[in-house]
Amino acid sequence: MIIKTQLSEKEMPEKFYNISADLPEPLPPVLHPGRKDPVGPDDLSPLFPMELIGQEVSQDRYIDIPEEVQDIYKLYRPSPLYRARNLEKVLDTPAKIFYKYEGVSPTGSHKPNTAIPQAYYNKQEGVEKLTTETGAGQWGSSLAFACSKFGIDLDVYMVKVSYNQKPYRRALMETFGARCIASPSIETEIGQKILAENPESTGSLGIAISEAVEQCVKSDSTKYALGSVLNHVLTHQTIIGQEAMSQLEKQDEYPDIIVGCTGGGSNFAGIALPFLGKSFRDNSSIELKAIEPSACPSLTKGKYAYDFGDTGKMTPLTKMHTLGSEFVPSGFHAGGLRYHGMAPIISHLTNLGYIAPEAYTQLDTFQAGVTFAKAEGIVPAPEANHAVKGAIEAALKCKESGETKTILFNLCGHGHFDMQAYIDYFDGKLFDNKYSESEIAMALSGLPSVG
Amino acid sequence: MIIKTQLSEKEMPEKFYNISADLPEPLPPVLHPGRKDPVGPDDLSPLFPMELIGQEVSQDRYIDIPEEVQDIYKLYRPSPLYRARNLEKVLDTPAKIFYKYEGVSPTGSHKPNTAIPQAYYNKQEGVEKLTTETGAGQWGSSLAFACSKFGIDLDVYMVKVSYNQKPYRRALMETFGARCIASPSIETEIGQKILAENPESTGSLGIAISEAVEQCVKSDSTKYALGSVLNHVLTHQTIIGQEAMSQLEKQDEYPDIIVGCTGGGSNFAGIALPFLGKSFRDNSSIELKAIEPSACPSLTKGKYAYDFGDTGKMTPLTKMHTLGSEFVPSGFHAGGLRYHGMAPIISHLTNLGYIAPEAYTQLDTFQAGVTFAKAEGIVPAPEANHAVKGAIEAALKCKESGETKTILFNLCGHGHFDMQAYIDYFDGKLFDNKYSESEIAMALSGLPSVG
Repeated sequence: MIIKTQLSEKEMPEKFYNISADLPEPLPPVLHPGRKDPVGPDDLSPLFPMELIGQEVSQDRYIDIPEEVQDIYKLYRPSPLYRARNLEKVLDTPAKIFYKYEGVSPTGSHKPNTAIPQAYYNKQEGVEKLTTETGAGQWGSSLAFACSKFGIDLDVYMVKVSYNQKPYRRALMETFGARCIASPSIETEIGQKILAENPESTGSLGIAISEAVEQCVKSDSTKYALGSVLNHVLTHQTIIGQEAMSQLEKQDEYPDIIVGCTGGGSNFAGIALPFLGKSFRDNSSIELKAIEPSACPSLTKGKYAYDFGDTGKMTPLTKMHTLGSEFVPSGFHAGGLRYHGMAPIISHLTNLGYIAPEAYTQLDTFQAGVTFAKAEGIVPAPEANHAVKGAIEAALKCKESGETKTILFNLCGHGHFDMQAYIDYFDGKLFDNKYSESEIAMALSGLPSVG
Repeated sequence: MIIKTQLSEKEMPEKFYNISADLPEPLPPVLHPGRKDPVGPDDLSPLFPMELIGQEVSQDRYIDIPEEVQDIYKLYRPSPLYRARNLEKVLDTPAKIFYKYEGVSPTGSHKPNTAIPQAYYNKQEGVEKLTTETGAGQWGSSLAFACSKFGIDLDVYMVKVSYNQKPYRRALMETFGARCIASPSIETEIGQKILAENPESTGSLGIAISEAVEQCVKSDSTKYALGSVLNHVLTHQTIIGQEAMSQLEKQDEYPDIIVGCTGGGSNFAGIALPFLGKSFRDNSSIELKAIEPSACPSLTKGKYAYDFGDTGKMTPLTKMHTLGSEFVPSGFHAGGLRYHGMAPIISHLTNLGYIAPEAYTQLDTFQAGVTFAKAEGIVPAPEANHAVKGAIEAALKCKESGETKTILFNLCGHGHFDMQAYIDYFDGKLFDNKYSESEIAMALSGLPSVG
């Protein structure tokens, strides 16, 4: 039997939740890359509109969601919450498994949740053009969608290997009117420099960020947008967890365990932080599991240290779990999880012991995804397969211990754009791309010295 | 402003609507391909379960939707109805445009609406395996999804050109556990015969139907399923129009014009027939527009005559608008609209003057789809672009005449699996594949003689 819990539009949250108000210890400051002292609004204003800079350091527990943003959310929100009854049966577990499904958005993932408010705040402050980067394209296509709603121009630097191999999300961006540039490109100095050194460079997310930032700072009417990592991005994604809390309440349920996949950390934060914040205020406990790929294990194998967000070393320094800004992960399919760092908030909470990270191999996550698809009827994105795997592991532990725990996980996107990965999996062409200890050590040796 | 009308699960229709009860003239009978006299249940029982044979000839206005079917519908139904306010603004039309969005299903189109009940009724009658055919894969993946829910094996004969060029929906079928065979194949006599004549054959829907039917009749525990054309399929799709009627009622609206795309006719029937039936009972009037591709113009250029449903001439003869069962349409992107015939119910109603068909070229429909995506934020499937084009044309007519008409159209699926078509469109590689008058004349000269 299908148990779906749907909220009405009137029940959609009207505020973002900001965990900074409830943190047991404050976040370490963000440092200027040159001066190495804390950045101020003036340092960030070439990149972001003032409202988002304010949200980045806000200590307010709640931030009003503008009506115009709520209005566009209604295209696909509130998103449904399902109980995975068939998966429970297949696993023969006493656990109850619930999942929030963000694949109902126009681009098939959770990314529009922050793309829409970011485009809105930029428009409010007169910004005419945004630049950004994208890996496999989830973020780029979502920002393209949002910019089309507000009439903002958008240039997306797309990692060249994805630009060439995965043209579908690129086409989605172009359908929404964005311009998509293969990175490294000749349009920026950093791009030209990298191409001069290596004309065959297939790019990386770190390089694409550098290019987007460089293009942004050259023009006054242009700002830059980031799809994960930053505090305000995580705050916008909390609409997921707040909705899930209301939906579970309707089922008289409350989660014991929350599971999400982590690349930059925003979808995990979105589902988990409203519950974690409540546990801080209530003095109650909740188990949070952050699932990352074995091939890019920033939380489980990285160092909690100050590092750059990009390869070109242009961004401010943030304290985070990092594999080193020069680390280039192998070419596994969960493109949204291929980032050397982790959101400072998620890193901080992991460091304080509130989040338990787990890493799984590509093959294990695809096996979990196919099991889920057969049981529940929805084919997850490769990124979401990590959350599925984590939830299955948690449910199997309940089977061992006989505990009837309630598990909530975030199914952050559908796999309709990623079927080539499933083909490779079925054809036996998918391999476990493990990290190399020496590569990580090498990349970590390049960490900037601070203070 | 986004105006979305969502029904609660409790408001989901509990009955299918069967227009046979309200037709002003009865449908012409279906004829046996050999005997040329009306077929009876015994003729059809090797292919279909008795319940579906009963529905095929039922005169009951309503058919109960089994609880198990309603339950699986709840995974994605009721589907949302939107008002296309931004599109109205872009077109500067006084018309109100509403669209029903079926892309929220697990396979991204309306096809599961009939796949689920078909799998259910087969399971009820002990069927262990189904065979079917698919073109681009919308139907095959939807039946694969439904069969996975009921534990039925499925073999899908997929037109070889799509099998090779469009592997993504094939991967979706395989993810749900179905077996996918490139057609023509060596697994059937008709396939072997065609390959012996032309080893390079890239197949057609007509050939794939012949193979699926041949494999089905060879085994007692195997039945066959068709994703469009037949009366019972159209009846299952009426859940779309019934929901839309309730949703429009909540907005105090009633459509003057209903628009849908037509390949086999089922999604158009789904949205239109509940309204048309009501107009028969009320003696009121409503305008129905069936939009087809210029390159496969069965309603606008075909003949209303008895013909086979397949190339192998194994199926019963139905009276329908047909381009001849040997007509092979050119390779345009809206694979779901590449069928030589049309649903008998839609053909009959068109012949009686209740449906106005219109044909548009591929380029015109893609231009309409991109306009829609930019305005509304959803990228339509190439098939759905035809409905978008028809709705835009109707709205522009209202602009000319100054009439404030209410237009309802069916956005039958999203384009996430079809981005190559958009790439080709943007790259100027998409052409208008016109029908050739002589090819149609040749194919029509092969129509069977009846009576």
